[in-house]
Amino acid sequence: MLAFENDYSEGAHEKILQRLAETNREAASGYGNDPYCEQAKEKIRAACESPNADVFFLVGGTQTNQVVIDAYLKSYEGVVSASSGHVNCHEAGAIEFTGHKVLALPEHDGKIAAGDLEDLMKKFWQDESHEHMVFPGMVYISHPTEYGTLYSKKELQEISSVCRQYQLPLYLDGARLGYGLMSDETDVSLKDIAEFCDAFYIGGTKVGALCGEAVVFPRGNMPKYFLTIAKQHGALLAKGRLLGIQFDALFTNGLYYENGRHAIEMAKKLKEGLAARGCQFFRQSPTNQQFLVFENKKLEELRRHVVYSYWEPYDEEHTVIRLATSWATRPEDVEALIELV
Amino acid sequence: MLAFENDYSEGAHEKILQRLAETNREAASGYGNDPYCEQAKEKIRAACESPNADVFFLVGGTQTNQVVIDAYLKSYEGVVSASSGHVNCHEAGAIEFTGHKVLALPEHDGKIAAGDLEDLMKKFWQDESHEHMVFPGMVYISHPTEYGTLYSKKELQEISSVCRQYQLPLYLDGARLGYGLMSDETDVSLKDIAEFCDAFYIGGTKVGALCGEAVVFPRGNMPKYFLTIAKQHGALLAKGRLLGIQFDALFTNGLYYENGRHAIEMAKKLKEGLAARGCQFFRQSPTNQQFLVFENKKLEELRRHVVYSYWEPYDEEHTVIRLATSWATRPEDVEALIELV
Amino acid sequence: MLAFENDYSEGAHEKILQRLAETNREAASGYGNDPYCEQAKEKIRAACESPNADVFFLVGGTQTNQVVIDAYLKSYEGVVSASSGHVNCHEAGAIEFTGHKVLALPEHDGKIAAGDLEDLMKKFWQDESHEHMVFPGMVYISHPTEYGTLYSKKELQEISSVCRQYQLPLYLDGARLGYGLMSDETDVSLKDIAEFCDAFYIGGTKVGALCGEAVVFPRGNMPKYFLTIAKQHGALLAKGRLLGIQFDALFTNGLYYENGRHAIEMAKKLKEGLAARGCQFFRQSPTNQQFLVFENKKLEELRRHVVYSYWEPYDEEHTVIRLATSWATRPEDVEALIELV
Amino acid sequence: MLAFENDYSEGAHEKILQRLAETNREAASGYGNDPYCEQAKEKIRAACESPNADVFFLVGGTQTNQVVIDAYLKSYEGVVSASSGHVNCHEAGAIEFTGHKVLALPEHDGKIAAGDLEDLMKKFWQDESHEHMVFPGMVYISHPTEYGTLYSKKELQEISSVCRQYQLPLYLDGARLGYGLMSDETDVSLKDIAEFCDAFYIGGTKVGALCGEAVVFPRGNMPKYFLTIAKQHGALLAKGRLLGIQFDALFTNGLYYENGRHAIEMAKKLKEGLAARGCQFFRQSPTNQQFLVFENKKLEELRRHVVYSYWEPYDEEHTVIRLATSWATRPEDVEALIELV
Repeated sequence: MLAFENDYSEGAHEKILQRLAETNREAASGYGNDPYCEQAKEKIRAACESPNADVFFLVGGTQTNQVVIDAYLKSYEGVVSASSGHVNCHEAGAIEFTGHKVLALPEHDGKIAAGDLEDLMKKFWQDESHEHMVFPGMVYISHPTEYGTLYSKKELQEISSVCRQYQLPLYLDGARLGYGLMSDETDVSLKDIAEFCDAFYIGGTKVGALCGEAVVFPRGNMPKYFLTIAKQHGALLAKGRLLGIQFDALFTNGLYYENGRHAIEMAKKLKEGLAARGCQFFRQSPTNQQFLVFENKKLEELRRHVVYSYWEPYDEEHTVIRLATSWATRPEDVEALIELV
Repeated sequence: MLAFENDYSEGAHEKILQRLAETNREAASGYGNDPYCEQAKEKIRAACESPNADVFFLVGGTQTNQVVIDAYLKSYEGVVSASSGHVNCHEAGAIEFTGHKVLALPEHDGKIAAGDLEDLMKKFWQDESHEHMVFPGMVYISHPTEYGTLYSKKELQEISSVCRQYQLPLYLDGARLGYGLMSDETDVSLKDIAEFCDAFYIGGTKVGALCGEAVVFPRGNMPKYFLTIAKQHGALLAKGRLLGIQFDALFTNGLYYENGRHAIEMAKKLKEGLAARGCQFFRQSPTNQQFLVFENKKLEELRRHVVYSYWEPYDEEHTVIRLATSWATRPEDVEALIELV
Repeated sequence: MLAFENDYSEGAHEKILQRLAETNREAASGYGNDPYCEQAKEKIRAACESPNADVFFLVGGTQTNQVVIDAYLKSYEGVVSASSGHVNCHEAGAIEFTGHKVLALPEHDGKIAAGDLEDLMKKFWQDESHEHMVFPGMVYISHPTEYGTLYSKKELQEISSVCRQYQLPLYLDGARLGYGLMSDETDVSLKDIAEFCDAFYIGGTKVGALCGEAVVFPRGNMPKYFLTIAKQHGALLAKGRLLGIQFDALFTNGLYYENGRHAIEMAKKLKEGLAARGCQFFRQSPTNQQFLVFENKKLEELRRHVVYSYWEPYDEEHTVIRLATSWATRPEDVEALIELV
Repeated sequence: MLAFENDYSEGAHEKILQRLAETNREAASGYGNDPYCEQAKEKIRAACESPNADVFFLVGGTQTNQVVIDAYLKSYEGVVSASSGHVNCHEAGAIEFTGHKVLALPEHDGKIAAGDLEDLMKKFWQDESHEHMVFPGMVYISHPTEYGTLYSKKELQEISSVCRQYQLPLYLDGARLGYGLMSDETDVSLKDIAEFCDAFYIGGTKVGALCGEAVVFPRGNMPKYFLTIAKQHGALLAKGRLLGIQFDALFTNGLYYENGRHAIEMAKKLKEGLAARGCQFFRQSPTNQQFLVFENKKLEELRRHVVYSYWEPYDEEHTVIRLATSWATRPEDVEALIELV
């Protein structure tokens, strides 16, 4: 079977496994108080050009969104997100579980617009009954978005500027950040993200780690007792070293970028191949997720040879699917897939 | 430094790392829908002699307690636990975070007594105002307990019998279950636990895995949509294979028991050596955690050579510490520690 | 000042005050276990032609929505509501506070459409990743809606039918039910509501009581231990008699309907008067809330003589306001208001 | 039947009913924005000699405890209470419902001891793993306690002093405050309470109102957006006037104290009469709740003539019951009860 279902189908980059093996019998304190976590944090600070950043390692993406958002919001506040945002759609209500509403803004190719955000804020504060409503308390964006799209530097800057005007922390979900950073079509760097955001995470799970996400608070602004908050959410890993060692490896000799770049190369190849064969793209994505419209009949055929993700119905006879490349995608599989179509 | 701080200081048993490496590039579906999870579940069912058991893999212990207990309890119910239970003391309020009270019973060497439980239930239902109180909705026990002690088969049976009389699900926290099962002083088997309990988990993190706990619902009685519940708690691992492969390895050729037995051997050696040197034991523990009373002065000395856990003050001049052995403890370290004392 | 701000500006109908005074020194058990509550329940059962109905009295509307919805939903479920629904907009996140998402459907004059609901359900169950999403667990409608509009019997029937097909409890927020039932333009009776819904409340606060809402579970289907659930939400009134006596009075000799009818008469008079003066209606409402578009300049003038509710901006120079009549509105005030405009 | 079941069996003091009737048709804004609330607040500020106090009216006691405690605590904090505290025993888990643990201290006649509190705080901060535990975030005391006992001024001062040392807000549950203030055996005034506490409530429900509790933040220290927090908890009353008018009446010409004093007089009479007849008191209470031990046989007899509260079993043949007097207790009923015994 050709594996294009998602970007977390394989294990981890071999360099990570190797580091796990090398350090395996060293005893280290738990809960992130180990030298590997320390080392990884230092490397991430350097990569973000944020020497004062606080960095905290968590296990998964939904968990990270839940813990960070709940740590930031006051009880009567909600988080603003694109209607298509992961926190609004595909996290089984993990945000609401912690007592907070997701305040949905219209999505434009998966992104929110600074203007929409500003309108929301203006309208909220003008409303004479706003004390009976959920206060917008922070902003969530994903980059790349759930549709594989990217914010431009200018867009980020504008959103950040509205956020600062209204004192809304800006939080970026970087589950696939490596693929965003290495896209041919981006002008956004880690440093830019650190500058524009108040918190963000560098996704490990989808970019070559066994598990793990590194939350960055770029200006040393991690909420107080964040470790306790994580523990209370069931999110504190006992063997924190598992996360530290992996991120240490990912940020040694550019492995994180290398993993990102490989997926982008594979996606480009796939895109070109499918376009050449006249395939219909549902959305234009400059990253590793590609959304395509296929005839249902064709899909039944493909299903025998390819694992893909069902996305949504297109019309009676067509369906949107997602094909994802990753750090682990084999060039020959891309070729085989193009042949098949 | 001699490492006796806890049983999660090292990485994982090498056989686990090896299996992770061997399967690394195989693509598999996420969220536990992979062949390794399936295989591991089958082996766990066999080990528990519970062919109909549902098995679900989670990442850590506090998380597992939180998700299972919240899944079982109705909103107006609380969980009964020994006052010394992990859920009552050392989980940063993770149970209350999900809206439920921990109803504490007196601890007897870390254990609850069936009689105390029965009294609680009788008193609750007799109280004319019980509808204004938290309903006892399930029972939590740990085995080994937080003090390293073990329930006897008879004790488990009695607790189970009260639970069944009052229709209280009985849940066993087996974070260190491997060490309990392999103790010289136990008459309790996995099969017994499966018979007496409605849910329990087989701890991986502390018995030689990188992370991971296997929750077992021995009679196919996993709460409906448990995967969604886990996701909502931020507890669903994307690369479920990481858990499946590890438990598959642990339940292949008895590795789990081997790991357990090694820690028990090391603990016996340590106990005997320390007793011979006249050390004062704070509690008698038949498993891998040993609690000792030391003079504070002596501790300052030890601290330079040994990593141990501070437990609690004993009196002005003495302190209780915990020394834990594990699957990874080296015999020469035990000897060196005995020499030091 | 002319009072058209809302329908809860005055105290209570004098017959209610009188009954409170008459019964004042009688001692009665708390928490609803008094003869007045019993009597009121019996009268409500009769009014709903639902002899097996469970009835429970709560203090306010947001509270009632929160308690009922939380009592019905499983932890991983959310409540479907019109985007304009009170639970989605004006309850400060009281639903999310209890851990549940509000799943918004498009509003059509404040109402949901059975077809939209069916589409939502079909799409949810077809989605291969629905276990990662919030399960639609019940349906919330308000009648009259937040825009004063009403469901027809046929619309209710259709919605109810979709609900039953998908086993979704249907819950109706009747904060202003008295005004809905007495509208000239309704074909819906209390009996119909009891037939189509699984739970609903008969609003007292806005229809002439000091406070209080009567939740009806028409087929004896009140969730188990609902009193405890209410208590846990801080919603159980100690002197339950305060609610029982009021609802007893409201359902004696048709006072509830009389109160409703009066507001409808006043609203008709107001509507006709304003229409005759060429006022622009923002929405057509057959009940006691009227939404009008005024020039901002005109509003500044009105503000000196009339208390109205700001609703939303219409355009740069116009604003939508709400004028509400109630059981207490004086005909001469309506006339004076019409004169003023 | 003689009514000694509790202090919330009757309606309200007639002066309250009268004020409700007098103001009934005046239109006023909702949610506490009415002149009566303003007036009542001013009178309460004067009574507490706290000119800068914020005052907020809520409906009931459990609700008030829940909203205030949740508003004060950070997510990872719990509230310290006597093990016998209402929040720990008889509120159906309303505190845990909002995500917070109740940290129980031993009770001494229903009271906590400053020394125990200090020990708890010292032990917490000394514990090397305190970041894995629930942080003590505020202190709850009730005055009178659940056993009718009272803190002395000195005891309050000591507790307050420990609280300030550890920056713990001190919150006093004054459900029966009127009865405490008017006890012969108290040296504590409203002013003292305002000085020692950071928040407290003056109970209306049990001291002659239909419903209502007045929360006082004596130094203008009400948590920001407290109205929104109340709304989110379902605790904001639409017709806030109902609470304002009642507290306005209670704090006009000393009605609150008069109500309190009456119950104390009745309790003294009852105590003396029962003592003279050789009755056994379970606890010594200087307020309106009296706890007595009766033979079960005797109780069966009494039950035919008196409504009392079951408290707890004493031994096989005896039971503890509570007899409560109130603002509404009739002297002749006290006499009749004494005769009966």
